[in-house]
Amino acid sequence: MYGVILAGGSGTRFWPISREQNPKQLQIIVGPGTMVQNTVQRLLPLIPIEKLYLATNHQQAIETLHQLDSYGFFSDHLIAEPSSRNTALAIGLMAQLMIDKYPDAVMGIFPADHVVTNSEAFIKTLQKAETLAQKGYLVTLGIPPTRPETGFGYIKQGTETEGFEGAYQVERFVEKPDPLTAKQYLEHGNYFWNCGVFVWKASTILEELRQYAGNIYSQLETIAGCLQKSKGKPGYLELDEKGRGLFSSLPSLSIDYAVMENSSQVVLIPAQFGWNDVGAWSALDDVSEKDSEGNIISGNVLAQDCKNSIIQGQNRLIAVLGLKDTIVVDSPDALLVCTKERSEDVKKLVEALNENGHPEGKQPSTVKKPWGSYTVLDSGPSYLLKRIEVLPGEALSLQSHQHRSEHWIVVSGSAQVVREEETFQLKVNDSITIPKNTKHRLENPSSDPLVIIEIQFGHLLDENDISRFEDRYGRC
Amino acid sequence: MYGVILAGGSGTRFWPISREQNPKQLQIIVGPGTMVQNTVQRLLPLIPIEKLYLATNHQQAIETLHQLDSYGFFSDHLIAEPSSRNTALAIGLMAQLMIDKYPDAVMGIFPADHVVTNSEAFIKTLQKAETLAQKGYLVTLGIPPTRPETGFGYIKQGTETEGFEGAYQVERFVEKPDPLTAKQYLEHGNYFWNCGVFVWKASTILEELRQYAGNIYSQLETIAGCLQKSKGKPGYLELDEKGRGLFSSLPSLSIDYAVMENSSQVVLIPAQFGWNDVGAWSALDDVSEKDSEGNIISGNVLAQDCKNSIIQGQNRLIAVLGLKDTIVVDSPDALLVCTKERSEDVKKLVEALNENGHPEGKQPSTVKKPWGSYTVLDSGPSYLLKRIEVLPGEALSLQSHQHRSEHWIVVSGSAQVVREEETFQLKVNDSITIPKNTKHRLENPSSDPLVIIEIQFGHLLDENDISRFEDRYGRC
Repeated sequence: MYGVILAGGSGTRFWPISREQNPKQLQIIVGPGTMVQNTVQRLLPLIPIEKLYLATNHQQAIETLHQLDSYGFFSDHLIAEPSSRNTALAIGLMAQLMIDKYPDAVMGIFPADHVVTNSEAFIKTLQKAETLAQKGYLVTLGIPPTRPETGFGYIKQGTETEGFEGAYQVERFVEKPDPLTAKQYLEHGNYFWNCGVFVWKASTILEELRQYAGNIYSQLETIAGCLQKSKGKPGYLELDEKGRGLFSSLPSLSIDYAVMENSSQVVLIPAQFGWNDVGAWSALDDVSEKDSEGNIISGNVLAQDCKNSIIQGQNRLIAVLGLKDTIVVDSPDALLVCTKERSEDVKKLVEALNENGHPEGKQPSTVKKPWGSYTVLDSGPSYLLKRIEVLPGEALSLQSHQHRSEHWIVVSGSAQVVREEETFQLKVNDSITIPKNTKHRLENPSSDPLVIIEIQFGHLLDENDISRFEDRYGRC
Repeated sequence: MYGVILAGGSGTRFWPISREQNPKQLQIIVGPGTMVQNTVQRLLPLIPIEKLYLATNHQQAIETLHQLDSYGFFSDHLIAEPSSRNTALAIGLMAQLMIDKYPDAVMGIFPADHVVTNSEAFIKTLQKAETLAQKGYLVTLGIPPTRPETGFGYIKQGTETEGFEGAYQVERFVEKPDPLTAKQYLEHGNYFWNCGVFVWKASTILEELRQYAGNIYSQLETIAGCLQKSKGKPGYLELDEKGRGLFSSLPSLSIDYAVMENSSQVVLIPAQFGWNDVGAWSALDDVSEKDSEGNIISGNVLAQDCKNSIIQGQNRLIAVLGLKDTIVVDSPDALLVCTKERSEDVKKLVEALNENGHPEGKQPSTVKKPWGSYTVLDSGPSYLLKRIEVLPGEALSLQSHQHRSEHWIVVSGSAQVVREEETFQLKVNDSITIPKNTKHRLENPSSDPLVIIEIQFGHLLDENDISRFEDRYGRC
């Protein structure tokens, strides 16, 4: 069995920790690792790392690979999508990629940002699903509802599938219900939440896509032919220009809408494991440990007389007093305070931030780069102060700036700096100045992280003021 | 008439904006200026700046003078107290100081951290009080209560003072009442809040102190003789070693307890002006402008569906959603979130912070110094990054450090740096390194503020690692 992890989430529901450029699946929401790391970890007992694939947005590709590095994840098993086109196209493209190499492949589809408890039961369910998939079924896992949830689609269980105990025909898929209907579904007992985990043969899903989503299916072979290894170091799969155009021209459809709701091949296996889509901060109530007053607290927090509240701090001190059912989430550049009952509306709040031109809606305070990251620490009328972290062995592009000079001081690790024709080796406490219009490159030649403090001077201090002459990550 | 401003508040109730080292009277709580600036501004129509005096803690002396600089406040009219000894001693010492120069002086006593609306009525009330003070009365202003407040002492109005319309004998002073009693006082109509504003002749209050607080009175002349101009630039009044010992050995008594509750000379003038002691964040409800939903919002805030909440931000983005009767106050290094009804308990919260060793309970993120201020921006295992602001014409001490080297970069203004025998003139973008055990001095020779970024390196990065060889502010 092969595994396909869908990691294309956009990251507004867990703002300010998740951002468009740093979405939920790349964050530690419930330990031990980030959500995508936990997803891989959970699958490894069944699917070895060399059989795992992942689709994500091109903006998250490098950070995702960094996070999966320690698992030995194959960088060319990651498809970096040029734009968001929902699950039907992502799954179709993965199936096409697979069938060319492994005509009989069974593939499991796994969202990257869900929490599963009782991993053993999860694996057992997948093994049962694999047997059904081998027979040509589209297997969907259904979660027994525990509340009248209006935020999910439901699957209505039909009669038991002949010869497969614990697997059922699907009577129908239903869209997100209103509260009254959701209550009836809960009482009825044979409606299940659609959790987005599917198992099928690559050949089966392609056949169903051909039948029910011909416009997508007809382009898959061509688009798959446009996949190529990205230039430079990380070497994930990306589309060439033709492929990007084709991909982005196709409709944005979920696999549920495109195939599952139409196909007669679908069977349902009710899940025996705990599941949570952690769709909002309030979902931590179901998946995190609480103190004796029902609070979930992390970070540098002093709480007095608080109840059933979620306080997520970092280094900065948070003092809270007398709160009930309140959510406080801090980040270096933005703070969220809301009531638990409104936590679903954080999504709308982020939309409002974006509409009002607040960059904090999308961009995180620490910006990930192929070579590491940078964090803005301070700024003034004509200076900008950053902490820059360069990963071991990585290097920024050979570049120059038209409008700013830069002053660097090494505060941790060691640096190699190219400035025009000269090369300098800098250690902690060493500094160097890079004048305007001077070709330069910062590199970490060591096996430890390099941290420098950068002070930029100039009247225009803009990330776009950069001319790249050479780059390891194909950004020239 | 002379004015004595009592500015010795400790700054826990408006945490995290006020801190022990940066208390409420030095903060902008309700515009336009800081509370002590507003207090001076309010008095100027009646009392010219050369007749205003101020008592504060020695830690706040320089910052208080900086804030009153633009009013032309006389720096040797400020008494920097070596420790907090409540109002009886502070008032006695001021009276002693005054009577030596102006035997008939009438002095008004004014807390530095209250809000007064209708300044004209305030001035008129003071003029009436002055007339009574000239006759030898101790005049206290009483505020007509508007709620059954349990946090104030009350004054019970007696019969009208003969010959003085609108002035009354005082039947008695009463301590902070329980809720039921407070309700009765409110209904009764002739109880007034004790607002800490008093008017009397210096000779009268000294005589009353002699009679009712002899242990304090007997030392006043000696202590006043120990007052001297502080060494170095600011030139406020401070006590010599003998004076400090005497001062600190005396009991900590309020003037109410020491004199007012005992004296038969007290008369009450009910106030005709608006008054608020802004004793907690929730008091902003009474003194600040609200939006249509009853919120008081300042700073970089996006609020959705909030009601009757107080959201005080700064530069960092705060997004709030669905809050009711909630207080959110942000500062660079600490955040407070509490319910409005618990806002009086912020004081206890700060006590808990101090007990738990959180430096944010006392020390502000921007630390004021005689020469300007510094702010910690970042730190790592062996470095500390600061922004240092040096006021025009000021200079740090000639100093050296045993355990750290420093790297400075000028980001605004111009600097003169002494390093051992050499002197350097630095402008924006210039940098210099100060090795360990090297005598150095940073000075701002210009008329514009100087801002530098400092990076300290070393295994021990501590403010106490400093040897001072010369200092303009008497800190050697």
